[in-house]
Amino acid sequence: MAINVGLIGFGTVGTGVVRVLKENASVIRDKLGCEVSLKRIADLDTKTDRGVKVEKGVLTENADDVINDPDIAIVIELIGGTTVAKDIILKAFEKGKHVVTANKALLSTHGAEIFQAASSKSLAIGFEASVGGGIPILKALREGLSANRIESIYGIINGTANYILTKMESEGRKFEEVLASAQEKGYAELDPTYDVEGIDTAHKLAILINLAYGTYSRLDSIYTEGISRITELDVRFAKEFGYRIKLLAIAKASDGAIEARVHPTMVPESHPLAKVDGVFNAVFLHGNAVGDTMFYGRGAGMMPTASAVVADVMDISRDIVKGSPPRLTPLSYSEKAIKGVKIKDMDDLELPYYLRFSAVDKPGVLSKISGVLGSHNISISSVIQKGRRLGEAVPLVITTHNALEKELRLAMAEIEKLDVVLDRVMFIRIEESLGAAY
Amino acid sequence: MAINVGLIGFGTVGTGVVRVLKENASVIRDKLGCEVSLKRIADLDTKTDRGVKVEKGVLTENADDVINDPDIAIVIELIGGTTVAKDIILKAFEKGKHVVTANKALLSTHGAEIFQAASSKSLAIGFEASVGGGIPILKALREGLSANRIESIYGIINGTANYILTKMESEGRKFEEVLASAQEKGYAELDPTYDVEGIDTAHKLAILINLAYGTYSRLDSIYTEGISRITELDVRFAKEFGYRIKLLAIAKASDGAIEARVHPTMVPESHPLAKVDGVFNAVFLHGNAVGDTMFYGRGAGMMPTASAVVADVMDISRDIVKGSPPRLTPLSYSEKAIKGVKIKDMDDLELPYYLRFSAVDKPGVLSKISGVLGSHNISISSVIQKGRRLGEAVPLVITTHNALEKELRLAMAEIEKLDVVLDRVMFIRIEESLGAAY
Repeated sequence: MAINVGLIGFGTVGTGVVRVLKENASVIRDKLGCEVSLKRIADLDTKTDRGVKVEKGVLTENADDVINDPDIAIVIELIGGTTVAKDIILKAFEKGKHVVTANKALLSTHGAEIFQAASSKSLAIGFEASVGGGIPILKALREGLSANRIESIYGIINGTANYILTKMESEGRKFEEVLASAQEKGYAELDPTYDVEGIDTAHKLAILINLAYGTYSRLDSIYTEGISRITELDVRFAKEFGYRIKLLAIAKASDGAIEARVHPTMVPESHPLAKVDGVFNAVFLHGNAVGDTMFYGRGAGMMPTASAVVADVMDISRDIVKGSPPRLTPLSYSEKAIKGVKIKDMDDLELPYYLRFSAVDKPGVLSKISGVLGSHNISISSVIQKGRRLGEAVPLVITTHNALEKELRLAMAEIEKLDVVLDRVMFIRIEESLGAAY
Repeated sequence: MAINVGLIGFGTVGTGVVRVLKENASVIRDKLGCEVSLKRIADLDTKTDRGVKVEKGVLTENADDVINDPDIAIVIELIGGTTVAKDIILKAFEKGKHVVTANKALLSTHGAEIFQAASSKSLAIGFEASVGGGIPILKALREGLSANRIESIYGIINGTANYILTKMESEGRKFEEVLASAQEKGYAELDPTYDVEGIDTAHKLAILINLAYGTYSRLDSIYTEGISRITELDVRFAKEFGYRIKLLAIAKASDGAIEARVHPTMVPESHPLAKVDGVFNAVFLHGNAVGDTMFYGRGAGMMPTASAVVADVMDISRDIVKGSPPRLTPLSYSEKAIKGVKIKDMDDLELPYYLRFSAVDKPGVLSKISGVLGSHNISISSVIQKGRRLGEAVPLVITTHNALEKELRLAMAEIEKLDVVLDRVMFIRIEESLGAAY
């Protein structure tokens, strides 16, 4: 007996899937007790040599050759995007095929439709590769930690953004410079918007929230802010205050609602997340029974992502071998338990903040700024002012105690109108609770 | 519909299981689509108040009341030990019941018999809680990383030992002092042998090897060395050389054999494992597709361990709900693929070593010692000699380049016979490859 698999999308990850199925064939067979056979591969480009051997007759330009093949039990969708990929997945379900995908953009925007289509036909959908690359974090949420109420999730889940922040810190360089060299090395796309503006991170957070809370979360309810406005000054000040700046995906259950936000965050340097450097990813979870846990590894790349895709194929194969229906629903929640969740308004957030002002260096400036903060019930935790150049602009940095985000925004608008303040106020949220949790 | 569960052993973890099933009942039901009902609890002590409410008629002194109850589908064994627990588990299988256990001592000594008993009856055995407490590391090995060849495993999997080493470093105190205070706080047993001598770590490593390599490993083939001989001097010198000392469980595939060893290890301080402090556990794995991954969390304690036990109960319940046979074999390998593996002889190990000599401070000592090392093909990487007290004993510390362990032991024996060397030579293995991997 062999499980026949079809692959649609023969790019980097697709090539990795072919390699893993080939190089680790004996391990896969030893575990499943049968072969996994890659019967068809569809890609518009059937000419390019990907450095892996493909048997004659396997390659096709037509995705339908995969979807309509009655011998294929599992379709792997790796073309990405939210249009053709969606059609392919829904058609595969119609044909009674299980699906494995790495498509976070699609699942975060059309997840409800796709998950429901799978459930209604009692078919499996595996999407481990959509978040955290090779790290089996979705399996941990769906199964390993399933006895927990998930109280918080903090994820570094975009390798490009983490690489840029790490390099800005270790080399003291500007965002633009590091981005340019990351693009040269192929660590960043030519259009880096998805990665540096937090959009990709938000897609992945939406999926984590789906699984943690049993909901079809709406991507547009996730507050999303990127790292392009972070300066080397902020990176340096963060260090002085004992923090590292990380682009975090954050979900927190609080007061019957869920905080869902993506933004650059000051993380206490003693916290394990502060030490996740370069292209590595990590998800730090707090469950009410398990306490703190962290899952760390390569969040992207040919082979790590293929590791997750093939693990999903093997999971589905185990049920096929036994003749069993999929043991897990797409979200691991029973369909009737899936519910809407309230997303907490950002205005109601209460956190400490890092504020950097470009202020004229003359007497009374700090008093004016702190006066405005005080009138909004924001109290100051510490102040750094460096480099005295009387009459010129110098950075003035303030960290606050817990403040209401709504009041903070009002205060910033007022402060920006002061004639001693020369530029927009820079602000970064501080996750002090990460220090306490650890 | 409800899944009826029976618990045998109402100690700390058993109490945690009762709490998780109660406190997280709604989450469990939302996921499974049915209740998990704790029908019977057996413990010799039915009187003590554990601070959790148990319905009348649930408690019994007789384990057979659980095993023989036809309504109970899953038996949770939490009494520990390798005699009664073994009988209970085998009897439960005979009665057609699935089993969940946290018993690493039992599984590492009688694993083959127990795993085969489960397989032969097509019953499931869950043992996530036996390694790494709440960290779903066994699930990662059995499923999440199943498409990989596991090239290496490095685990900090004994919280007591890690707590002691962490405190020795942070407070500069002696092993005996820290152990005594750990015993006072309840972090160490009155007889700490299992934890500090590496025995518990070896039990867990045996289980990790079972799953990673599809073998019934023999506990006695695992080289086991504890931390009781580590002095505060070694902890300090380690830091000077840029290392942390951690009690590691190590499994490495090399040249068709497997290194299987537990010992105090110098870990490069930049490596994520070096930063796993206190009672926390972590397992750092390298898979040929996924690359480096790390799983971090609480390796013991009432609620984290219960989190793993209940996750196993839920896993098994999912199959029961669907009317499916267990989807996974005990080791996740098909029975016929399970094979013996060759364990590499410690003599053939090739590593850099840290060596500390208690040497008389007089001219020519270093030359004598390095002469012996040289004659065994051991070359020196760096030397530290501190505190000059001519004619008295001072610590002389040497780190070596890669050396064969067999030669190192011969050299140490020779050096200990030198009249300028006053005490046994202290040696600690260095895992330099962890620096490179990361």
